[in-house]
Amino acid sequence: MTTVPVPAGSLFGPDNLPYGVYSVAGSAPRVATRLGDTVVDLAVLLDDEVFARPDLNAFMAQGHGRWVAVRRQIADRLAGEVPDEALHALADVTLHLPIAVADYVDFYASEHHAANLGRLFRPDNPDPLMPNWKHLPVGYHGRAGSIVVSGTDIVRPCGQRKGADDPVPVFGPSVRLDIEAELGFVVGTGSAMGDTVPVTEAERHVFGVVLFNDWSARDIQAWEYVPLGPNLGKSFASTISPWVVPLLALEAARIPTPVQEPRPLPYLAMEPPWGLDVELSVEWNGVEVSRPPYREMYWSPAQMLAHLTVNGAPSRTGDLFASGTVSGPAKDTRGAFIELTWGGTEPVTVGGEQRTFLEDGDEVVLTASAPGPRGSRLGFGEARGRIVPARGVG
Amino acid sequence: MTTVPVPAGSLFGPDNLPYGVYSVAGSAPRVATRLGDTVVDLAVLLDDEVFARPDLNAFMAQGHGRWVAVRRQIADRLAGEVPDEALHALADVTLHLPIAVADYVDFYASEHHAANLGRLFRPDNPDPLMPNWKHLPVGYHGRAGSIVVSGTDIVRPCGQRKGADDPVPVFGPSVRLDIEAELGFVVGTGSAMGDTVPVTEAERHVFGVVLFNDWSARDIQAWEYVPLGPNLGKSFASTISPWVVPLLALEAARIPTPVQEPRPLPYLAMEPPWGLDVELSVEWNGVEVSRPPYREMYWSPAQMLAHLTVNGAPSRTGDLFASGTVSGPAKDTRGAFIELTWGGTEPVTVGGEQRTFLEDGDEVVLTASAPGPRGSRLGFGEARGRIVPARGVG
Repeated sequence: MTTVPVPAGSLFGPDNLPYGVYSVAGSAPRVATRLGDTVVDLAVLLDDEVFARPDLNAFMAQGHGRWVAVRRQIADRLAGEVPDEALHALADVTLHLPIAVADYVDFYASEHHAANLGRLFRPDNPDPLMPNWKHLPVGYHGRAGSIVVSGTDIVRPCGQRKGADDPVPVFGPSVRLDIEAELGFVVGTGSAMGDTVPVTEAERHVFGVVLFNDWSARDIQAWEYVPLGPNLGKSFASTISPWVVPLLALEAARIPTPVQEPRPLPYLAMEPPWGLDVELSVEWNGVEVSRPPYREMYWSPAQMLAHLTVNGAPSRTGDLFASGTVSGPAKDTRGAFIELTWGGTEPVTVGGEQRTFLEDGDEVVLTASAPGPRGSRLGFGEARGRIVPARGVG
Repeated sequence: MTTVPVPAGSLFGPDNLPYGVYSVAGSAPRVATRLGDTVVDLAVLLDDEVFARPDLNAFMAQGHGRWVAVRRQIADRLAGEVPDEALHALADVTLHLPIAVADYVDFYASEHHAANLGRLFRPDNPDPLMPNWKHLPVGYHGRAGSIVVSGTDIVRPCGQRKGADDPVPVFGPSVRLDIEAELGFVVGTGSAMGDTVPVTEAERHVFGVVLFNDWSARDIQAWEYVPLGPNLGKSFASTISPWVVPLLALEAARIPTPVQEPRPLPYLAMEPPWGLDVELSVEWNGVEVSRPPYREMYWSPAQMLAHLTVNGAPSRTGDLFASGTVSGPAKDTRGAFIELTWGGTEPVTVGGEQRTFLEDGDEVVLTASAPGPRGSRLGFGEARGRIVPARGVG
């Protein structure tokens, strides 16, 4: 039996207790939590087979009451001595995709991001926002099957692009490969077809939060996206962090969203403060190039889920919806390189080199933290990915 | 032991042998085929536990060689006497969603449909097609979790809409509820992230074909879709037929697609004839209002799958991609009511009533058939759905 040590200042202290899926050599993936730099096997700690599985879905499907009870159990057990067979050093384990992703939807909830893209792509338009933008959280479905865990290499995608001066489209590796720094929200319990999830019920459905990098090939996207939206410019890969931070851990991070004016329709009216005071960081080859502030996001996760289901669309355990790029008002808070470099016209200096979009071998790491109780801070782990060269297409 | 009877002229003769999932009262869903009006339990017929499951995915994942072998086994066994415990009258069983849907993508592959919508929505534009349309099969990801089996009632969706004269958006039940008559293609074996499925390999990956009704709320869609594409206007429900017709059954239906000019980029160049001579029928409250001809479709399923994966996006067993609305050149071959009624300005007569879009209580049934070997015809079953009134939203 051992008391799990927590290094001073750890972002994974006893107020965090995120959920993930780990394995060690020769064993199958199982659910764990993390305390300090120790990975704690939950099937062993709690003697509960629902955690002896390769994803969180079965546990999440047990519902909000169980999420509350299990979080308390974990905290109680970890406050005392823990069986050694439950414990693994973080450095000794492999972390896996923590959830089996059902449907994945990406929103576009940052006013700064939407307005920046409007200014870049529609410079003659006096209003950089589309007419619908302040009335509904605009979003689209993306490819669930290409969501990967932090550390997975990202193969540069090939596809069609057509510049303004190209007479016909050309095919080849993307030359404008970008990131989008986002948060992702994991649906723990769904809703039946025909039902809705009102804003006031969202916290009984949203299990937790991950970091999300929506890798984006801007050249492929620009040519394909009219009129049905992004497809191959996004579908090649999205990276999430391996630790799902429970919404229950983020009480101290809950703040009001920015004022929403015009007032949204009643089904989007908010009651509890549903903004999140999460501070993201974007590192490009080890250099921090941006600190996107989630607190600036216009539409809240509760509004996103209410919107997603207001037409009676069912939601399921394992659904994942992401916020869209988190961008603040200042240049060094923009969460996509197309904004940070203003469409590639204002390079940033990264390790002595000038960069606009991603080159082969580049690595991007997203991290984040949020306030916890009693002045603590909670971490989200990281969403890391390295670009490897495009493969030849026969 | 019994010889399964096949009524004269049955669209489910021994050249079809589709796959579905059925149950009888008190038993779990299992995989079956259909011969005439008899449902044949495949786990019993072939003594193979891979069919004692609630979806086709495990069997599909065994790959093309097994699909060929099992189809031959089924035909051989059904040519003789069959154990009675394998047999159920079609009228006595419940049919279920035959596959566990992984990712769902909807294309837009009919030139007539795309051009009609261009004329309706952009009447001042000399070219009704978007610049990208003849260069790539345009498509977008839809909601996998709202795909339902034929016979499921469709709750009229609520959502935001904003007419040209509305100063602000209004919320309520859709007033322009439509259908899209399509075919859906089921991916039997996938491809790894970073890999591609060349056009020439598509038939080793595409397991079979279903009817697909992509119910569409045109008013919700029109307001939401810029710039990220359709979302709530489509995500409330899509209906598929319960029988997956194997691609192996459709050899006699394979024909060239229409000439593709300009010539597509090499990754989309086709070798075998990949058009499908499938004749669809749309019944509205029992009246056939359209006969959409699949043979007119510009982009082929092999091109759709090659495009979907050319950026290295992974594909999985259970992925479903649909063709988009099937529309031919003649008015009575249009596969969506927005085209058939020219944006609601030219009502059609249905059972003595004038109709533009769907009213509560309306029922739509899609059916289809294709040529089989030796002059036979093969059926696809039906995709049936009835509109029930919107539910109040709190």
